[in-house]
Amino acid sequence: MSFNRLSELIAQKNNPTVAGLDPRLDHLPPEFREPAEREGSLEAAADAILTFNKGLIDSLHDIVPAAKPQIAMYEKYGLEGIRAYIETVKYAKGKDMVVIGDIKRGDISSTAAAYAAHIGGTLIEGEMFDLWSEDAVTLNPYMGFDGIEPFIKPCNELDKGIFILVKTSNPSSAELQDIETSGAPLYERTAKLVSEWGKLAMGDRGYSRVGAVVGATYKAQGETLRRLMPDIFFLVPGYGAQGGKGADIKGFFGSDRRGCIVNSSRGIIAAYKNDRRYGDVNFADAARAAALAMKKDIIGEF
Amino acid sequence: MSFNRLSELIAQKNNPTVAGLDPRLDHLPPEFREPAEREGSLEAAADAILTFNKGLIDSLHDIVPAAKPQIAMYEKYGLEGIRAYIETVKYAKGKDMVVIGDIKRGDISSTAAAYAAHIGGTLIEGEMFDLWSEDAVTLNPYMGFDGIEPFIKPCNELDKGIFILVKTSNPSSAELQDIETSGAPLYERTAKLVSEWGKLAMGDRGYSRVGAVVGATYKAQGETLRRLMPDIFFLVPGYGAQGGKGADIKGFFGSDRRGCIVNSSRGIIAAYKNDRRYGDVNFADAARAAALAMKKDIIGEF
Repeated sequence: MSFNRLSELIAQKNNPTVAGLDPRLDHLPPEFREPAEREGSLEAAADAILTFNKGLIDSLHDIVPAAKPQIAMYEKYGLEGIRAYIETVKYAKGKDMVVIGDIKRGDISSTAAAYAAHIGGTLIEGEMFDLWSEDAVTLNPYMGFDGIEPFIKPCNELDKGIFILVKTSNPSSAELQDIETSGAPLYERTAKLVSEWGKLAMGDRGYSRVGAVVGATYKAQGETLRRLMPDIFFLVPGYGAQGGKGADIKGFFGSDRRGCIVNSSRGIIAAYKNDRRYGDVNFADAARAAALAMKKDIIGEF
Repeated sequence: MSFNRLSELIAQKNNPTVAGLDPRLDHLPPEFREPAEREGSLEAAADAILTFNKGLIDSLHDIVPAAKPQIAMYEKYGLEGIRAYIETVKYAKGKDMVVIGDIKRGDISSTAAAYAAHIGGTLIEGEMFDLWSEDAVTLNPYMGFDGIEPFIKPCNELDKGIFILVKTSNPSSAELQDIETSGAPLYERTAKLVSEWGKLAMGDRGYSRVGAVVGATYKAQGETLRRLMPDIFFLVPGYGAQGGKGADIKGFFGSDRRGCIVNSSRGIIAAYKNDRRYGDVNFADAARAAALAMKKDIIGEF
């Protein structure tokens, strides 16, 4: 599993999407949620989330190339939650999905080197432990290249990937990211940096292993960013529940119709709540139908 | 333990410093490091770090008001590392130190709400689990107020604190943070936002529970930021190993000589390596001497 594999799987499945595995307990159908609530323990809650995730992965892996677990949703449950995160990553990889860990870390260089264990593993006395085992992770650029550099080596040596926040999908993303800086908003300056950093870790299909997070909710900005970062792979959150549609993100793709992967979380994993034809027990079928509808919406634009 | 308690302890001990508990295995004296390396297991490595931390906390807690474990250094060791982090937080709190979790999280609102479990706990079926139990955490502002807001409630209701990155101590911090934005560098714009957000969670001693991270390595910038954020508590990294000195940070304090806490990590925890009078087995005494020298260097400026 690797960064180049992501492009292969997208092409094979003709589906540039990623399933956001961000379960909250109240996303779970009663069959999973109620026993966990009855027991009222962290272990039961984490187990319920893991079982739910496995059901989703089983139902999605042949049509969706990648999974993106959001670590906050697991960190919330402490050690038990982190265990469920790690198990989710492993299970998705075992089903031939590329896994993007949505961790949004970022720090000074010695600290970033420790975080790089997520994709680079941890060396103890000559033995390498691949404890987290994500194929790629998301990173925050506020501290500059210091926080990015330690990830470049595992990108190149292990064919891993990183996606750096450029223009995020949330309503308050404008507060910093859109501040005008000598004629350009800050996010365009971030894009320029990401483009430079990207040159340090080119993949074998014309896109860098250093990618960018560009929210689906800002159409014009995404199109500008594609022009500014022609070699950069985009991870696009904000589709579906946050409001983004296929027509909004056509311009986020490269001229080769590649270089972009679109995430949906609640829109897929909690689809059974919005489409009562399925019912709670068929949550995985509802997720699959939602994923297929999303695929159609996006590739239908080309 | 709480945000207001931090001010009390600083005053009691007449020491505005925090010990950064960021151990790497190679910081540990041979008595801890070698058994862990011999065993070559994650559990042994995490245990060695935890025992080292406990020795440091035992030696420092009566003179240093706070501890700041950097979660990356623990996350590196996976689940076992996270366990050592949580145990370190608990042990320091048990010794009446305020604990600032250096986690630098930041995300969209629903995700930030999950991360807020660090200071706000996790509710499962009416029962509150305080799994992480930090008194305060560091946060990243790149996504705007969405990523901050879920932390405001635990700040006010539980007297917890947050410190938002404004101007960081690392060499590449200028790449984004110093970009000129209509006459002011970006970090001043961030400061303005932090000041506004700070009004939402004022503590009882004239400083907000919404604090700022301002690196010791940028003297003039820190002084400007103090003028721009008079009500904001500063967490100041970059002292010692990164180059900052007491004379550099006098102007980071408020006119009341408060509102500031200065971190040293390697300079304290690995002090035994630089001062061979102590020897490996007396690492805790060396840390205490370094902490006292740091205190003298900083309060000697007033």
